[in-house]
Formats: sequence, C-alpha cells, structure tokens
Amino acid sequence: MLALTLPQPYLLFLGDITSIPNAKTAFGLRDWAPERCVGEFALPTATVTTGLPRLTPAQAAAQGAKSLVIGVAPHGGVISPAWVPALVEALEAGLDLVSGMHTRLENVPHLCIGAARLGRRLINVRQPPAVLPVATGRKRTGNRLLTVGTDCALGKKYTALSLTREFKERGVAADFRATGQTGILIAGSGIPIDSVVADFVAGAAETLSPDAEPLHWDVVEGQGSVFHPSYAGVSLGLLHGTQPDVIVMCHALGRDRILGLADYPTPSVPQAIELTLILARLTNPKVVCAGVSLNTSQLDATRAKMVLAEYGEKLGLPVADPLRRGTELDRLVDACLQGCSA
Amino acid sequence: MLALTLPQPYLLFLGDITSIPNAKTAFGLRDWAPERCVGEFALPTATVTTGLPRLTPAQAAAQGAKSLVIGVAPHGGVISPAWVPALVEALEAGLDLVSGMHTRLENVPHLCIGAARLGRRLINVRQPPAVLPVATGRKRTGNRLLTVGTDCALGKKYTALSLTREFKERGVAADFRATGQTGILIAGSGIPIDSVVADFVAGAAETLSPDAEPLHWDVVEGQGSVFHPSYAGVSLGLLHGTQPDVIVMCHALGRDRILGLADYPTPSVPQAIELTLILARLTNPKVVCAGVSLNTSQLDATRAKMVLAEYGEKLGLPVADPLRRGTELDRLVDACLQGCSA
Repeated sequence: MLALTLPQPYLLFLGDITSIPNAKTAFGLRDWAPERCVGEFALPTATVTTGLPRLTPAQAAAQGAKSLVIGVAPHGGVISPAWVPALVEALEAGLDLVSGMHTRLENVPHLCIGAARLGRRLINVRQPPAVLPVATGRKRTGNRLLTVGTDCALGKKYTALSLTREFKERGVAADFRATGQTGILIAGSGIPIDSVVADFVAGAAETLSPDAEPLHWDVVEGQGSVFHPSYAGVSLGLLHGTQPDVIVMCHALGRDRILGLADYPTPSVPQAIELTLILARLTNPKVVCAGVSLNTSQLDATRAKMVLAEYGEKLGLPVADPLRRGTELDRLVDACLQGCSA
Repeated sequence: MLALTLPQPYLLFLGDITSIPNAKTAFGLRDWAPERCVGEFALPTATVTTGLPRLTPAQAAAQGAKSLVIGVAPHGGVISPAWVPALVEALEAGLDLVSGMHTRLENVPHLCIGAARLGRRLINVRQPPAVLPVATGRKRTGNRLLTVGTDCALGKKYTALSLTREFKERGVAADFRATGQTGILIAGSGIPIDSVVADFVAGAAETLSPDAEPLHWDVVEGQGSVFHPSYAGVSLGLLHGTQPDVIVMCHALGRDRILGLADYPTPSVPQAIELTLILARLTNPKVVCAGVSLNTSQLDATRAKMVLAEYGEKLGLPVADPLRRGTELDRLVDACLQGCSA
C-alpha cells in the first residue's frame, strides 16, 4: 500500500516538557500502542513521565528501537532548538526520527546534516505520499467501519481505536486505519488525509483500506464532520473513498456549537446520522449506522451510565462512551459486527 | 486577494498544433477573453489558427503583451521540446510565460535558465497559492452564484462565463471567478481549487469571492459534483466556501453515467438540486436554485429549443443552454438576479 509505514518500535521523546496535555502524543502511544514503545527519553528539565522505562537512545537501540518519535506537541508545533542535541544523539545511536510537528525535520539544519551523514531517515508524519490515485469508486472486499462526527475533535480517533480493540478481543480480524498524525503514530502507518491535495482525498481513503478477507474489518479514523463549514469536503472525500459498511456517529455531550465557529450550531445526532448516511450511500448503498459514540468525559461513571441510557432510548440505537467499557460498549460492538457485508 | 493574478494581455502560443480540440485553451481565450489577447504565435508546422493577428513575441511585446500563454494541451499535458526555442524567444522579447500544463515550466532547463537570466516569471496556473486560510464560515457582503453539476465536464465553466456576460450586458456588476486552469487563463486570475490541500479548499473558495458591494455578483466556476465518487469533497468544499446565494444546476443531455465510472449513474436533475441545496444551506440558509443549464451541444437549434422547453416544463424552473442565447437564457438570468441577497 502507498500509505506511510513507520520504523518500529519507538523510543518516545518528551523533550523538556512540563505539562501533560502537551505530551498527548506520547500518552496516546503509551495507552494505545504499548507494544510499539520500548521506553521514553527526556531532557533533564522535563517533569512529565509516561511511566515507561527511561532509556538513552543507545539503550533503546540495543533493545530493538528503530526510531525516536517526538511525543510532545508544544503550541505552534515547532521543534525547539533545545531538543536538537538529543535528537542528533538519537540519529547517532542508529534511530530514525519521526515527527508529527508542523516544522519539517529536514528544515532543522543539524538534523538534516546529521541524518545525511549517518544514513538515517527523517519522517514527517504530516506529509502525505507523493503519489496518490484518483478514487475509482470500485467496491472492495472485506468490511469497513468509519467513525464520523457532529463536529471535529470529539473522539473519532479514540472511538476507532476502542472498537478495533474490542473487535480483536472477540477474535475478529481488524485493523485500525489512521488518517491523522497521532493516529498514524499509534498505528505505525496511515495517510494524513487533511494534508492530501483535494482531488486525491477519496483516492487516499481507497488506498488506506484496500481489498481484504471477507470477514476482516478496517476501522477507519474519521476526520471532521460533513457539517463543519471549514472541513466538510475532507470528511466527504474520506466517507466516499472509505465506502463504509458501518458508520458510528461520534458526539460530545454538551457540544452545541462547532468548535471555534460560534455562529454554527452542531447538528442534532439524528440529523447528523441522516445526512451522513445519504452521502455515504453514493459509494455503498448498504451502509448502516450501528450506533453512537458519546464523549462523556466530563461526567462521573454513574451519571455517564444514566446519560448513555437516556440517549440510547431516545435514539433507538446503541450508545456508548468508548473509553468506558461495559454493556453499552458491548452492545455497540454487537451492532457494528452485524453490519458485516459478508 | 491571495488568488493568482496573471500578467496581461496575452500572446497565445499554438506550438506545432494540427488539431482544434488540442487548442481548446487558445479558443476559449479567444471566445471569452478577446480583450486579453493581442494575437497568436505558432511554429511553422502548425496548421490551426484562432484567426487572431499572427505576431512574433517581439511584435506582441511592442503591442503591449505582458505574457505568452501556452494555449495548447496535447495529450499528457507535457511541454514539447520542439516548443522550447520559441518559448525562449518570448522570454527574450520581455514576456513572462504562463502555462496550465502538468509539466512545470521551471522543470524545463532552458526555460528555467532563460527566465533567471532575463528576470522573467514562469507561472504555472495549476499551482495554488502557497498560503491559504482555513474557512471561517463568515457571511460576506455582495452576491454569489455558483454553477454546480450532476457530473464533471459538462459546462459549469461556460455557464459561469455566459451568465457573467449576460449580467454585465444588463449593467449588473459581476466578476467571473475561476477555479480551474482554463478558467484562470480566461479570467486572468483565480485559484485551481482541485490542487489545493484538502483542509484549505473551503478557505480558498472564501478567498476567491471576498466581500463586495451589495449589488455585485461573483459568478463562481463550479467543479465536479457532490455526486462524483472521486471528487465530491472538492465540490463540497467549494460549495461551502462560496456560500452561494444562487446555484445553477448544470447537466448534459444524455449523460446518464458519471464520466469514466460506468458503475455510477448520474443523479436526476431534481435529485441533484435537492442534495446540493441541503448541503449549501449549511453556510447560506437562503440559497436558491435559479434554474438549470442544459448542455444540448449535440442537437440542432430547433430540436434544442424543444428539449429546453420540455425540461423547463417538467422541472418548473428556467432551463437554458448558455451557449444558445435567447428567451430561455433571458429567463434563467432573470431568475438568478431575483436570488440577490440585498
């Protein structure tokens, strides 16, 4: 496949970080891809830890690490000059560098020179493949699930990761297919769909979930929302190219305005399901909505359970918070697997 | 505005062309932007003419030409080595070079060197601006019309050009806003929307039709169709960013399959209008469909008139072929102007 594939396992680089939210990438990797992480590496000034073994690049390389992943994302997404000696140390230890930052690694002179001298790769996860096809609309074998949303940034990635894990625990062959930089780092491969040239978005989505065995599931990380005035085109291209058999609608409790666009209300969940299905039917007339993933992160467990039950009754669909395992999530997984096209 | 603006007027370059269809760009410029064309320039082996004065680059420059436009598009979109001496002659005469070809001008060594030596610009019309904003969804002043379609390649550009001309002839302030390479050459500016990175398509569309006087119309060249499995995301981003007050649905008589995708039927015109309006209402709840532009190029004038009347009666909307002037087109223009938001 044309999608990026990353050298693994990783050493997670925390830089000089002092706040947990800025280390979201490292924590996401620890939580969702522990088997890909041999340890962490931080500057002496860092105060945050993932709890993974602290290793120097040389120690990590000796334990099989193939790359150092920049696991922090300070505001602006730039590579701090203070990190550069540590990153060069990693190159010297035999590790490739992997970054989801806006700054491209090769634009940092010491890294560019060091990588060339040592024959190491500098991998920018936000960079899509150079050549992608235009979508053909051809039906592919195997099954596909796409997480879709009423807005951006409300849990489409974690929903896809959680469903992939549940599928696998039931013995169902499944792959998480990443479409954003954090997802790509977690999966070890993927395509940053929002960075693809517009004409090739649906083609990139087709590439990302190729023909597969009849009972296999690709669980594709959604992006944005067809209701988002800035990004709906990205969401629609991803929807058409994925040709999902099943969609799961993601919503965040209390999110009544599109993020950052106060003039735009979020759609109701039923509205969002209806329009997303209408659009999805163009490339897969059999698509169904298996249920709803509701982000209830601001509630305690008891209150969350009540809210999920209320929503489920109102919508007549399974409703679960994928970060809270239990009967609600089991029912959502049941409904997803019933959408199988085989 | 951030959109590309081309040095004008043009000298049209026909290369060594021997077939009229390959000179579509030159003929489009002659027909739709005669005021931007001082003449044509061809190699001795060419057998096609636009009928414009034949000028050498030096003669054209003396008459005010600012650039030479490659007006031919042979299969594959490559710049033929046979053209290079003539293109260098144009650089030496003081003209910039403008190309809508796939080959980038600076990738032809003699052109790259010649332009650098002479201080001329090499302008690739397929190249979008380096910096584009993410769409804000903010309502802008003035009026916008977008040509939309049941498929790609059926007359959205010519419909927009024709409506712009009709608006102007009625004394209505109007600008044609180009979104594809031929349109950009005709308009002298624009953004090649299908080459924009996906996240910025709606933002590019916002940039292309900025705030304007209350009675002014931007007539925006549509791209693709929200029913096209390969390109719907581009069409949706353009629709959302344009925030049209009025859409005109374009269809080609007899086109019952999506171009190049035999498994996909084109939608009916009413289906296409319904879904396009549902999607357009996200960023402009007042959007209306003024009518239908029907490509009847394969019919004679009498038969075309009958078919337009039949379609109009069936749909209950004005239906015109924008390349056939007359009462049908007048009624379509009336309906467009009634959609004014002021």
